[in-house]
Amino acid sequence: MEKAMNSGKFSTPLDLKNFTVSDDFWTKEMELVRKEVIPYQWNALNDRIPEAAPSFCMRNFKVASKVTKEAKAAGRMRPASEPVFPWGHFPAAGEEPKDEFYGFVFQDSDFAKWIEAVSYSLVRCPDPELEKTADEAIDIVVSAQQENGYLDTYYILSDMSKVFTNLKDNHELYCLGHLIEGAVAYFKATGKDKLMKAAMRYADYVISCFGPEEGKKKGYPGHEIAEMALVRLYEATGDDRYLALSRFFIDERGKRPYYFDEEDKSRVKKGEEDRERYAYNQAHKPVREQDEVTGHAVRAVYLYSGMADIARLTGDESLYRACLKLWDSLTKRKMYVTGGIGATHLGEAFSFDYDLPNDTAYSETCAAIGLVFFARRMLEISPDRKFSDVMERALYNGVLSGMALDGKSFFYVNPLEVNPKACKLDERKAHVKPVRQKWFGCACCPPNIARLVSSVPAYAFSEKDDTLFIHLYIGGTVKKKFASGECEFKIESGFPWNGKVKISCVSKAKVSGTLAFRIPGWCTEAEPVKNLSSFKGDVKTEKGYMYLTGEFSEEFSLDMDFAPKPRLLRANTGVSEDFGRVAVNMGPIVYCLEEADNGRNLHLLKINPNAPLQAVSFDELNIKGMNMIIAEGERTGADPEDADLYTEYEKLHTEKTVLKFVPYYAWNNRGEGEMRVFVNL
Amino acid sequence: MEKAMNSGKFSTPLDLKNFTVSDDFWTKEMELVRKEVIPYQWNALNDRIPEAAPSFCMRNFKVASKVTKEAKAAGRMRPASEPVFPWGHFPAAGEEPKDEFYGFVFQDSDFAKWIEAVSYSLVRCPDPELEKTADEAIDIVVSAQQENGYLDTYYILSDMSKVFTNLKDNHELYCLGHLIEGAVAYFKATGKDKLMKAAMRYADYVISCFGPEEGKKKGYPGHEIAEMALVRLYEATGDDRYLALSRFFIDERGKRPYYFDEEDKSRVKKGEEDRERYAYNQAHKPVREQDEVTGHAVRAVYLYSGMADIARLTGDESLYRACLKLWDSLTKRKMYVTGGIGATHLGEAFSFDYDLPNDTAYSETCAAIGLVFFARRMLEISPDRKFSDVMERALYNGVLSGMALDGKSFFYVNPLEVNPKACKLDERKAHVKPVRQKWFGCACCPPNIARLVSSVPAYAFSEKDDTLFIHLYIGGTVKKKFASGECEFKIESGFPWNGKVKISCVSKAKVSGTLAFRIPGWCTEAEPVKNLSSFKGDVKTEKGYMYLTGEFSEEFSLDMDFAPKPRLLRANTGVSEDFGRVAVNMGPIVYCLEEADNGRNLHLLKINPNAPLQAVSFDELNIKGMNMIIAEGERTGADPEDADLYTEYEKLHTEKTVLKFVPYYAWNNRGEGEMRVFVNL
Repeated sequence: MEKAMNSGKFSTPLDLKNFTVSDDFWTKEMELVRKEVIPYQWNALNDRIPEAAPSFCMRNFKVASKVTKEAKAAGRMRPASEPVFPWGHFPAAGEEPKDEFYGFVFQDSDFAKWIEAVSYSLVRCPDPELEKTADEAIDIVVSAQQENGYLDTYYILSDMSKVFTNLKDNHELYCLGHLIEGAVAYFKATGKDKLMKAAMRYADYVISCFGPEEGKKKGYPGHEIAEMALVRLYEATGDDRYLALSRFFIDERGKRPYYFDEEDKSRVKKGEEDRERYAYNQAHKPVREQDEVTGHAVRAVYLYSGMADIARLTGDESLYRACLKLWDSLTKRKMYVTGGIGATHLGEAFSFDYDLPNDTAYSETCAAIGLVFFARRMLEISPDRKFSDVMERALYNGVLSGMALDGKSFFYVNPLEVNPKACKLDERKAHVKPVRQKWFGCACCPPNIARLVSSVPAYAFSEKDDTLFIHLYIGGTVKKKFASGECEFKIESGFPWNGKVKISCVSKAKVSGTLAFRIPGWCTEAEPVKNLSSFKGDVKTEKGYMYLTGEFSEEFSLDMDFAPKPRLLRANTGVSEDFGRVAVNMGPIVYCLEEADNGRNLHLLKINPNAPLQAVSFDELNIKGMNMIIAEGERTGADPEDADLYTEYEKLHTEKTVLKFVPYYAWNNRGEGEMRVFVNL
Repeated sequence: MEKAMNSGKFSTPLDLKNFTVSDDFWTKEMELVRKEVIPYQWNALNDRIPEAAPSFCMRNFKVASKVTKEAKAAGRMRPASEPVFPWGHFPAAGEEPKDEFYGFVFQDSDFAKWIEAVSYSLVRCPDPELEKTADEAIDIVVSAQQENGYLDTYYILSDMSKVFTNLKDNHELYCLGHLIEGAVAYFKATGKDKLMKAAMRYADYVISCFGPEEGKKKGYPGHEIAEMALVRLYEATGDDRYLALSRFFIDERGKRPYYFDEEDKSRVKKGEEDRERYAYNQAHKPVREQDEVTGHAVRAVYLYSGMADIARLTGDESLYRACLKLWDSLTKRKMYVTGGIGATHLGEAFSFDYDLPNDTAYSETCAAIGLVFFARRMLEISPDRKFSDVMERALYNGVLSGMALDGKSFFYVNPLEVNPKACKLDERKAHVKPVRQKWFGCACCPPNIARLVSSVPAYAFSEKDDTLFIHLYIGGTVKKKFASGECEFKIESGFPWNGKVKISCVSKAKVSGTLAFRIPGWCTEAEPVKNLSSFKGDVKTEKGYMYLTGEFSEEFSLDMDFAPKPRLLRANTGVSEDFGRVAVNMGPIVYCLEEADNGRNLHLLKINPNAPLQAVSFDELNIKGMNMIIAEGERTGADPEDADLYTEYEKLHTEKTVLKFVPYYAWNNRGEGEMRVFVNL
């Protein structure tokens, strides 16, 4: 057992208000979210994107508000209509929408993710007009809330007597979770508590329905997120009933008899009563007994994040032990080199150990985002590079690949190998899109990127008593309150393109405390801190973090160079799809071959692993500092058209060639073409 | 254009009665079919296999006969019930079957395939008891025939007013085709014409419904086979109305507006009126315009077989040209090295050019069988090794792999690479079974193997005027009527394990004519015929066939040795899945690695392509003469358990090892385990 669990002291993220961001890489990403994604998404929520299917999200809140008022005025409940099971309801072609719920059952969450991204953006860039829009949206949402606090337009507009009767499929507690996350973020950003109060009222209603007390439901979310959201509400309010509810959801999960069977007996097939089921929802057995990540990947990492939160806050060692096992299962056997997770599109789910096909990968953007959530929470319990290295890998690769460099189109699925022809002609790869899409019917990924990117400093820094942790290198300033006083540090960073970082103190006062920062796992420099001797305090290194303890004043300035070098990674021999192949990495960035630079038939290219790799500046995509990696390779000549399908083997003609690798996250910004991360040796 | 098309003279298969088979390899296969498959199948057709789902096939005929008689006695039509659309009807669990149709819509064809296999078996091994069983079965089937000749129990037992209203899905003309094939075979085997007459009456009724005449339907089969079956009926009866109907089906296919749209307008989706559709049924455009094999693989090769038949019999050059293009599309871009076809389980269909994944292959046994049909028909038009080489490849590999060496279990799907874990844990490979199955709900493959294996001499030999062709080397005797008299040849063959063949003449009389035999494409011997100088007539070689023209008498005896050598084949560079890999072949046999001989993790094995390959005797499977191929290779050490998923590349530790390849068709006869055909270089 990790000692950290017993100390009762954990690192926690700093409030976003303690940061300014001034970073070539991240400022651009954040500005994309602010200028492109947030406005586009607001239009989408209001069905104002001509080329996209309507979302109905804001409309549902308005209609819910209207019919609630009408029913109240008439002194009776709105007549029940049959809830639409399980995914949603759409107007027929040409039909005028009626006063009904439309869209997917989880449509309410689109607003919540939007308001969360807006909140983070407002912290960094105050914008009265955007704040006004947000306030108006909140008015609409809150006006749909029922007297008892319930707030989910799907049931408000269909049949309130069915509330919480289909936890497995109908996403009510998922929508609750997102609502809380959005509400807390908006409260912290603006100090306005209207949405926060609504979220608390809804959570209070949920507390009245679920819990160990007699007569209350013993259920838990079919799609997790409420677990970590309730923790956030607890941390924002100090009300430990929210913590208790989160813990209840986690403790109940997977108990026999299954709650999902209890709420719908027809789910049990004859002869399957004793079989483990609901692995898709991570509810096949109690969470403390789970040691293999299974099922829907987003659900899974959201659950594990909540488990880590509860372990941290309650010192629950058995729960933490389960988190560590699941972490290993995930990162040692089921994660793509991009930090993408979920190897199969069937159920958007994890496959079995080491089954990581490149061309049929699912690797949903939201799942990589969830992995970042999980990693940060594991870091909070125990600062260990093994968590932050994975967080960095997922963030710079599997997450950012989800958004185009202009912020205007998105991948839901992030394959590691694409042949556009296969995407179009092979139904087995129909989930793999050869180009990013404008928007999705099930639009979970773009707003999820928006909320993560806008709050990325919260992943870069955390604090624990008198220690400030730096997990990721993002340029800007960060304020930390030490016991001896507040200190502001300035970070200048060349990440991810070079490893040069300067950390200096910009406060006049002298404070004492500890500054801890990560030495990335990919760093091969023996002494990455160039002027360490200038620091007069204690220095120690533990689990990949260097701890500087002593006094910090204006004189303090550290120069580091983590000196990322292009390198070749191979996969574990268990990954049959990657055997005889390597992936080019440099620092946190995973690279790939694209047709634009290397022509077609990428499978006919081989890399020479013994020749040096060279990083050169790559301007074509207008990202300051971006590198291309040049490698020596050979190209096998393609057979002439009409050649036989099978011929006597003889060594094929090859010619030397230069392989050009570009950052994976930036692929497919120059039109449609082949791509591959793992290249043949 | 091939000259052959203009001559009006084509080679045609000899009647099976002209052969005796005495061949180590094929006698065993035929005996398996006779002793195992045919009796098992008869029990299956009669729902007497406790462990298999009931077939309902013979029951449907009995019930159809009964209700027809009852309706007739009552002087009225049986009341219509709604036909079960589109696949079939099964009794609910525990429910006693009623007087209704049960099973898949094509269930009648199971009887037809069985009677066809029985027929061929009776030619080789007369068996009065089996013949009696067959006669009784025929009595049952024929008693279900309607007064107008119609004979399909699905509609007889549901609603006769719906006959021929859903050609696309409901397999009526498919069942007609199989019925004809079975009936002709039984007539030729026994001389009994009861089933033949019934088939003709049914065909006559179909002629009254379909054709160019006004008022007749302009439809064609949704699942092809009737095309080639009607040709067979024409060749057996000389009645050219059957030929005309086959040609009509072929000529109508794919014409606009689509017949499948006409029979059901709801099939057209708005905005798709002008789109090519029905490629799944090869009905997306007129057959003469088709130059890429598409859709359901079995349907496709059945159609192409019918097209080749019609081209041959009518001298239709445009149709023949289409056949040649489709042949190239199929064998140059869409065929596995095993002769298996159909790369995707989605629709049991062809994928796009060069998309031939090994581990998710569909490669249905029936499709490889259909390829043998197509190849033989192309050979009939023009004897050319390119057809017989493929026929041989499909027969010895993709077809025979469908049946266990004990004849008791079957593969429907024939992958080229199997990891049993993936079959069980990865839904995307759920169609790939790691072990052969006893029987299938949709039991098309086992009876299809049975009818092909029992009639294999019809694929080995054909005749054209005074020429006897030998396409495949099967031991036994064959009689050929030359203009100058009948001659019987004796063939002794070491195929497929060695290439030694002796052809001698066992007739006393002296005849003159031509004996033509294939020099297999894999043969590298400059002079495979060892005593060619002993033949005093003319010798020429054309398109891979050696033609000996002159006198044949008791002195005639040829000794050949085609001397198969183990060799490595590579796939076209277009096949990305096979790049950097080779397949071991020897003569007609494709080999594979099995876990039983090579341990687990077959992906970690590499073959040394420069080291010699060695064929050694392999007795473990009790097949006389079977070889194992021994190759030099190396094994990469597997990472230790709990090793990292991604690590810095360095050359992995390897050790020299001996790779042991066994015949692909015989894989999985020693329990469950990994298998792969294409091995890493």
